[in-house]
Amino acid sequence: MIRAGIIGATGYAGGELVRILTGHKEAEIKWYGSRSYIDQKYAGVYQNMFRIVEDVCRDDNLKELAEQVDVIFTATPQGFLASVLEEGILEKVKVVDLSADYRIKDVSVYEKWYGIPHRSPQFIKEAVYGLCEVNRAQIQKARLVANPGCYPTCSTLAVYPLAKEGLIDMHTLIIDAKSGTSGAGRGAKVANLYCEVNENIKAYGVASHRHTPEIEEQLSYASGENVTLNFTPHLVPMNRGILITAYASLKACRQPDGTTALPTERQVRAAYEKYYANERFVRFLEDGVCPETKWVEGSNYVDINVKVDSRTNRVIMMGAMDNLVKGAAGQAVQNMNLLFGLPEEEGLLMPPMFP
Amino acid sequence: MIRAGIIGATGYAGGELVRILTGHKEAEIKWYGSRSYIDQKYAGVYQNMFRIVEDVCRDDNLKELAEQVDVIFTATPQGFLASVLEEGILEKVKVVDLSADYRIKDVSVYEKWYGIPHRSPQFIKEAVYGLCEVNRAQIQKARLVANPGCYPTCSTLAVYPLAKEGLIDMHTLIIDAKSGTSGAGRGAKVANLYCEVNENIKAYGVASHRHTPEIEEQLSYASGENVTLNFTPHLVPMNRGILITAYASLKACRQPDGTTALPTERQVRAAYEKYYANERFVRFLEDGVCPETKWVEGSNYVDINVKVDSRTNRVIMMGAMDNLVKGAAGQAVQNMNLLFGLPEEEGLLMPPMFP
Amino acid sequence: MIRAGIIGATGYAGGELVRILTGHKEAEIKWYGSRSYIDQKYAGVYQNMFRIVEDVCRDDNLKELAEQVDVIFTATPQGFLASVLEEGILEKVKVVDLSADYRIKDVSVYEKWYGIPHRSPQFIKEAVYGLCEVNRAQIQKARLVANPGCYPTCSTLAVYPLAKEGLIDMHTLIIDAKSGTSGAGRGAKVANLYCEVNENIKAYGVASHRHTPEIEEQLSYASGENVTLNFTPHLVPMNRGILITAYASLKACRQPDGTTALPTERQVRAAYEKYYANERFVRFLEDGVCPETKWVEGSNYVDINVKVDSRTNRVIMMGAMDNLVKGAAGQAVQNMNLLFGLPEEEGLLMPPMFP
Amino acid sequence: MIRAGIIGATGYAGGELVRILTGHKEAEIKWYGSRSYIDQKYAGVYQNMFRIVEDVCRDDNLKELAEQVDVIFTATPQGFLASVLEEGILEKVKVVDLSADYRIKDVSVYEKWYGIPHRSPQFIKEAVYGLCEVNRAQIQKARLVANPGCYPTCSTLAVYPLAKEGLIDMHTLIIDAKSGTSGAGRGAKVANLYCEVNENIKAYGVASHRHTPEIEEQLSYASGENVTLNFTPHLVPMNRGILITAYASLKACRQPDGTTALPTERQVRAAYEKYYANERFVRFLEDGVCPETKWVEGSNYVDINVKVDSRTNRVIMMGAMDNLVKGAAGQAVQNMNLLFGLPEEEGLLMPPMFP
Repeated sequence: MIRAGIIGATGYAGGELVRILTGHKEAEIKWYGSRSYIDQKYAGVYQNMFRIVEDVCRDDNLKELAEQVDVIFTATPQGFLASVLEEGILEKVKVVDLSADYRIKDVSVYEKWYGIPHRSPQFIKEAVYGLCEVNRAQIQKARLVANPGCYPTCSTLAVYPLAKEGLIDMHTLIIDAKSGTSGAGRGAKVANLYCEVNENIKAYGVASHRHTPEIEEQLSYASGENVTLNFTPHLVPMNRGILITAYASLKACRQPDGTTALPTERQVRAAYEKYYANERFVRFLEDGVCPETKWVEGSNYVDINVKVDSRTNRVIMMGAMDNLVKGAAGQAVQNMNLLFGLPEEEGLLMPPMFP
Repeated sequence: MIRAGIIGATGYAGGELVRILTGHKEAEIKWYGSRSYIDQKYAGVYQNMFRIVEDVCRDDNLKELAEQVDVIFTATPQGFLASVLEEGILEKVKVVDLSADYRIKDVSVYEKWYGIPHRSPQFIKEAVYGLCEVNRAQIQKARLVANPGCYPTCSTLAVYPLAKEGLIDMHTLIIDAKSGTSGAGRGAKVANLYCEVNENIKAYGVASHRHTPEIEEQLSYASGENVTLNFTPHLVPMNRGILITAYASLKACRQPDGTTALPTERQVRAAYEKYYANERFVRFLEDGVCPETKWVEGSNYVDINVKVDSRTNRVIMMGAMDNLVKGAAGQAVQNMNLLFGLPEEEGLLMPPMFP
Repeated sequence: MIRAGIIGATGYAGGELVRILTGHKEAEIKWYGSRSYIDQKYAGVYQNMFRIVEDVCRDDNLKELAEQVDVIFTATPQGFLASVLEEGILEKVKVVDLSADYRIKDVSVYEKWYGIPHRSPQFIKEAVYGLCEVNRAQIQKARLVANPGCYPTCSTLAVYPLAKEGLIDMHTLIIDAKSGTSGAGRGAKVANLYCEVNENIKAYGVASHRHTPEIEEQLSYASGENVTLNFTPHLVPMNRGILITAYASLKACRQPDGTTALPTERQVRAAYEKYYANERFVRFLEDGVCPETKWVEGSNYVDINVKVDSRTNRVIMMGAMDNLVKGAAGQAVQNMNLLFGLPEEEGLLMPPMFP
Repeated sequence: MIRAGIIGATGYAGGELVRILTGHKEAEIKWYGSRSYIDQKYAGVYQNMFRIVEDVCRDDNLKELAEQVDVIFTATPQGFLASVLEEGILEKVKVVDLSADYRIKDVSVYEKWYGIPHRSPQFIKEAVYGLCEVNRAQIQKARLVANPGCYPTCSTLAVYPLAKEGLIDMHTLIIDAKSGTSGAGRGAKVANLYCEVNENIKAYGVASHRHTPEIEEQLSYASGENVTLNFTPHLVPMNRGILITAYASLKACRQPDGTTALPTERQVRAAYEKYYANERFVRFLEDGVCPETKWVEGSNYVDINVKVDSRTNRVIMMGAMDNLVKGAAGQAVQNMNLLFGLPEEEGLLMPPMFP
C-alpha cells in the first residue's frame, strides 16, 4: 500500500486528489496538509467527505512528511515547493508537484512569466514533465514529476500528433481556450464570486497567460522547432472543464506518390490514430463529433477531434477534459501509478458523469 | 456475474444505471433497451460512454430479455411495465422497476393520480417498495421491486425517524422540495430548455404532484396514522440534486421523568441516530450543518439534518441527495445488491464530486 | 430635478440604484459614495456603466452629502446609518435607508437579532417602513424611510391579503424562501464563490435568519395578532430573484349565508384582488399560473398567486420578485417617488427581461 | 406614432422586440404574429408581459399586415420572408428582416450555405445590410433592411477598423466565437435542454456555420479584398451574450517617417477611435480591459477592445454584446429609427443590467 501525503489538500485540486485516492486500491492518504485549516476536520472543510475521511488537516512540514509517506503531492501556490525542496527529501519520497515550479526547463523563462525567483533551480533538470502519454518512460524512472498545467495538458495533447508529424505550420498556431471556474482556485476574490461569473464569458490574461511558455516548450519538443504561439484563455460559467480550440495552417508534406501536397483529412486523422489508438485516457472521437466538456466530466479522459477546412487550408483541433482530473489530480495519480509500477489506470476508471 | 438488462437505457436514469453498473464488480449489462435509438450505438447517444460501452441499443422486448438476463431494470414511462409484466417473466428474472407502476398499494389511488388504468394490478401486492433502509428484509426475498420515486426517497428518509418515534404531529407535516432539472427527464419540451430553466425558480404541481400519495403512504406506515400532507416541488437551475425542507409541529411525548412534554432537540437528534447510525448511505450531519445537494452529487448518499425551533415548537427536517443516484439508479442498484445477496454498497461507493 | 446621493454605490443594491436612477426623468445622481473605491472611476468598478457614468467614487460623509443633495440612499451594512444619522441631516434631506437599521420598531428585537447596539434609537419611531403598497400615505409625509428587506417585501406582499382579511390561521404560517445569490452581496467570501454556489442548493439561517422578526412585525400589523412564524431561506444558483412559498391553514370565517365555514378558493382569490387590483407593481396572476422569478427579472414587479389545497385545508401562497429591484433599489426609488410627489412608477417601468 | 407589426413575436428575438418597443416613445406594436400561438394571449406565452401586453397572437398574413402598420419586423425562419415578399408590400411598409434572407448579395452563396432556394432574389440588390454603424446613410433611404446576424454583427464591428485601415493581413483572420443559448432559439430540441447545455461547452458548426459567408462578405467590403476566414462558434451555458475573440497578423504599413513597419499598439487603437469615438452603441474600452458579455447584458452596446501581441505580431480583437439586443432586436429597432428619421438611440438607452 502506497502511503500518500498531500500538501494543499483543501484547494480544489487537493480535494480532487482526495476524491480519487479514496477509490485507489493501492494507495492511502496519510497526511492532509492545509495551512489554512490546521487541526480542523478535513470533512468539515469538504463536507462531501463526511463519514469517508475522518482525519484532521495538518501543516505543510515537508521534511516530517517525507518520513511518513512514499509519495508527496504538492497542490500549492507557485514557488512553495521550490522554496522547500531538498535532496534529502527526494532521497526518501517521490514528489508529484501540481504547481508550475519544475515544468519549465529554462529558469529565466519561469522567473519572467511567474514574476518570482526560483529557489531551487538545481532540481529543474532532473524533474520530468508528467504528461504521461508523451513522457511515460522517463516518468517511470523519476523522483520528481512536474505535473502539467491544465491548459498545457489539453493544448499539447490536442496538437501533439500534427506537431510531431510535421503536418502543420507551427508559426501559425493559435490556441483559444475555455475553462470552468474551478481552475481559478478556491481563493475568495470578487472576480470569482457566483454573480460575477454566472451569465458571463470573458477572455483574460490575453497574450500574457503563464501557461503560454509551458505549451510552447512542449510543442517545441514535439515539432523540433522553436514555437511561439497565441494562447487566449476564457472564463466560462461552469465548475469544471476545459475546451481547447486550436487553429493552424496545414503544411505541405511528401505524399505516397512522391509529390508534395497538403495533407488530406484522412492523413490528419491517421496522425491522431497513430499516437492515441492505444492510449487509455485519450479518446480520438469519430469524424464529425465535437468534444464537449460535459462528456468527460469527473473522468480522466481527454476527448479530441480535428476538422480540416479546405476553404482556408487550416486544421481546427479540439480537445476537452476535466481540468481537475486529467488537468490536475487525475494526471497526478496517473503519474503516481507510473512512478510505482502500478497499472496506469488504477483508480482512474470512473466513467464521466452525465448530465 | 449478474447479467442485467435495462429498458429505457437512454433516459437520464437509464444513463445513470449504465454509469453505475459499469463500475460494479458483480454485474454486467447485457441489454441496452431504447425504443428511440434501436440499432444505434449507445455511446453515440451518450458520448461519455465512448470507448467504455460498445453495444448498440435494442428494443424493449421484455420476454426475450427475460431469457437472457438475471435482472431487468425498467426506467420507463408510467404504465409501460404494468402493461407487459407477466408471471412468466417474474419466474425467470428479478425486476427492479424505476417507474411508479408498483409503488402504490391502493390501485385506485394510482389510477387517480396518474390518470391511467393499471394493467396488471395482480402484481401490486407482491411488489416490495424498494426503500432499502426501511424495507431491507422484504427486498431480499422479492421478485419485483418498486424502486421509490426521487422526491419520496428523500422526503421519507428525512422524516422517517420522527414519524416512527411519534415525535411529530403528522397532520402538520409540510414538505417543500427543490429539484434539479434532470428529474424532468430528457424529453424535448420548451419548459425544460436551458433558457427557460436557467436563472429561474418556480413551484410546479402545487397540491397535485404525483409523488404526494407515495410519500403519504410511506409515512403512514411509519407513523401508523393516515397521513395527508402538503408537498410542493420546485424546479431549480441545476442538473442534479434534490433538497427537502420539511416542517412539522413537535408532539408532546412521555419524558424519562414520567411527565409529558415536547421532545428536546437532543431527543429529536437521538431518533435520527437510532435509525441511521449504522446506515451506509444515510449521513446524519453534525449539529448545525445544513445539507447541500453539492455535497452528495454523483453519490448514493442522503445527507440529513434537523433543527428544532423553540420559538414555534416546530422541527425543520432537511435532506439532500442526488436525484439520479439515491433517487433513481443508485437505489436501483442497491436493491439489486439486496436481491442477489451481494454487499449492499457494491458499486455504490464513489464519493460525492465537489465542486 | 431631484439630486440624489448614494452611500454604498458599489454594492449590488447600490449598483442597481445607479442603473435605475440613470433612467429616471426627475432625478440625477450627484454622489457615488463607496468607501472601498474612493477616487476610482465608478465605471471602472461597474464596467456596465462605461460611457454612461463618468463620476468617480467618493467617501461616505453624510453631513457634507446632506448639503448637496435632496435625497440620500444608504445601501450600507447594518449599523452604519444608525451610527451617523442626526437631526440636522433629516432637516435637510430625505433619507431612504436600504439597511435594516430602522425597520424594526422594538429596539431590543433589533439588537437581539442583529447582535449590535442601536446607536440612534430616537429615530426609530419616526421612520416609516417603506412597503409602498401598504404604507403609501405615511411614506409621502416621511423624512426617513426604512426600505424593507428583500425577503420581507416578497413574504409580506404574498401573505398580506389573507392576513388582513383574517382568512388564515396566523399560528400555522410557514414561509419557505429561495433567493438568488446577489442577495448575499459583493463581499469576497468562499461560500459565495461560483464553484460553491453553482449546481447547489441549501437552506441557511434556519430558524435564525434576521429577516424573521421583520416579517413577523409586518404581518402582526396586518393581522392584528402577534405573529410568530417559521422562515427558512435557501440559496439558489442564480443571480437574481426571490421566490416565496408560504403555507397556512385556512381559518373558518362567516359566509354570505350566515354560516361559518372555511373560505373557498374564490374567496381567497377575491382577497388578493381587493388589495392588488389597482397596484401597479403587484401582479396577481391568473388561476393556475405559478410565479417564476425569471418572469420579473430586472423589473419592479412582484408576481403573486395562491392555491387552496382542499385535501389539507391549507392555502399555498407564492410570490416572485427581483431581489435587487422590488427587493431593494426599485422599491427605494418607488419610495423616493412617493417622498417627492412624483408618479410612483417613474423610472420603474422597464419590463422584465426574458430569457 | 409608428405602427409596428411583428411576425414571429413568440421567438426569443420576437420577445425581445416586444420588450424594447414597449419602452419606445414613438412606436407601438399593432400586430403580434405567431403561427404557433394564434388567438392565445401573448402574455400567456411570455408571462413577463402580463399586465403590459394585452393583445392576442395573430397569424403571419403579410399582406393584411401591410395595410395596418408602418413597419414590419420579421423574426422568422430562413426562407419565410423570401417566399412571401412582394413589391406591393414594400410600397406600403418598411420591412426589417431579422432572418438571413436578404443579407447575402450573391444568391448562389445563400442557396449553398442555407440549403434552400431563394424565392425572391429580385429584392436582394435593393435590400440594405442593416449594420447601422457602417451603412447608416443607405439604411435611412431603404425600404427593406436585412438585419445582420448576431455573430456577424459582433465579428464585423470588432474587426472593421483594422480591415478598413488595412492594418491586418485578411488572409490570417480567425474568429473564435462564443454564444449564449438564446441564440439557438426557442425550439424544443434535446441539444438545447437545460441538462445538456449546463456545465458544458462545445464548438459546433466547425468550418460550416452559416454566418461565415455573411462575415466574409462584410469584411470584404471593408478591406477591399476577397476575405476567406475561419469562424468557429461555441455554445456557452448562459442565456444571453456573444463574445468574439479574433486573431490576425499585423500588416506592415507606411509609417509617419516614410518607412514601412508593423503598426504599433497605439496605431491600432487609433483606428478604433477613428471609427467608434462618436458611435453611441460601440464602446471601445480602455487599454487592458477585456470585454465581458455581462457588462452589456440587456443593452444595445457592443464592447470592443484589442491587444497587440509583440511576440507573435498578431492582434487579438475582442467584442462582446447581447445577442438578442444589438445582435437582433435592438439593432432592428435602431434600423427602424434610421428608417423613420428618429433619433437613432430612441428606445435603446436602457443600461446593461449587472449582475
